[in-house]
Amino acid sequence: MKVALPAIVAVAVAFSAVTVNAATKEEEAIKYRKAVMTTMAWNVGPIGAMVKGDRPFDKDLAIRNAERLEALAKMPLEGFAPGTEQGDTKVKAEAFLEMDKFRAGMEKLQSETAKLAQAAKSGNLDQIKPQFGEVGKVCKGCHDTYRNK
Amino acid sequence: MKVALPAIVAVAVAFSAVTVNAATKEEEAIKYRKAVMTTMAWNVGPIGAMVKGDRPFDKDLAIRNAERLEALAKMPLEGFAPGTEQGDTKVKAEAFLEMDKFRAGMEKLQSETAKLAQAAKSGNLDQIKPQFGEVGKVCKGCHDTYRNK
Repeated sequence: MKVALPAIVAVAVAFSAVTVNAATKEEEAIKYRKAVMTTMAWNVGPIGAMVKGDRPFDKDLAIRNAERLEALAKMPLEGFAPGTEQGDTKVKAEAFLEMDKFRAGMEKLQSETAKLAQAAKSGNLDQIKPQFGEVGKVCKGCHDTYRNK
Repeated sequence: MKVALPAIVAVAVAFSAVTVNAATKEEEAIKYRKAVMTTMAWNVGPIGAMVKGDRPFDKDLAIRNAERLEALAKMPLEGFAPGTEQGDTKVKAEAFLEMDKFRAGMEKLQSETAKLAQAAKSGNLDQIKPQFGEVGKVCKGCHDTYRNK
């Protein structure tokens, strides 16, 4: 089968205004990792509000958002490729100098969000609360260590 | 069990610099939907390059990214809430005036990316190519209709 070239062009055109025009590969990686974090923050919000008691518990929403977080947690690391140490970013040099430790933090985020998704499926807010706390600790730990204020 | 308040504070603090300071709910929704699109574009890239022959076919990478696209395709719609018609956005008014049609486009994206994930699992690039084209058509169709240049 031949390559469906019009389709490729269609996708390229479709996203041309989404990606920064003439952005370097490094700028795109920085933009990407920030976009993943923004998407995570949005999806953390409603679970946090439920845990805090600011909105009624909604099991389906908790599961949906926790599963999103589990999926999203696997995405940002590839955005911290060599060459992305500087630019429009708050990341500290330490993240790149201690990449094994930084990667371990991301893997911890993956396992803790997976546990959050499991906890959400219990439908019991009292199981979600402590696990949400564990996720929060991982977020804060990594941000405190590797992100400039 | 009591609410683990320190954990909530930790999460809130962890994301405080990710979300725009003092952003309105509407600004955050616009930022969110754009972040999802940026995340999609990043993950489309490698599959497009494989389809085009610009990089070697990598089954695992194709599956991973196609599954990400399937998950991400479910996320942007909630960012197009009433009140987000204007601001730092390229969306046309038509998207909100024809929300049923706009929503149908998003649902089409969900079903076509799900099919792309299935095609990727075949491990056969010739099955991926036409389905990648279908995804591209949905992207382009919606962008042509609802996004300003």
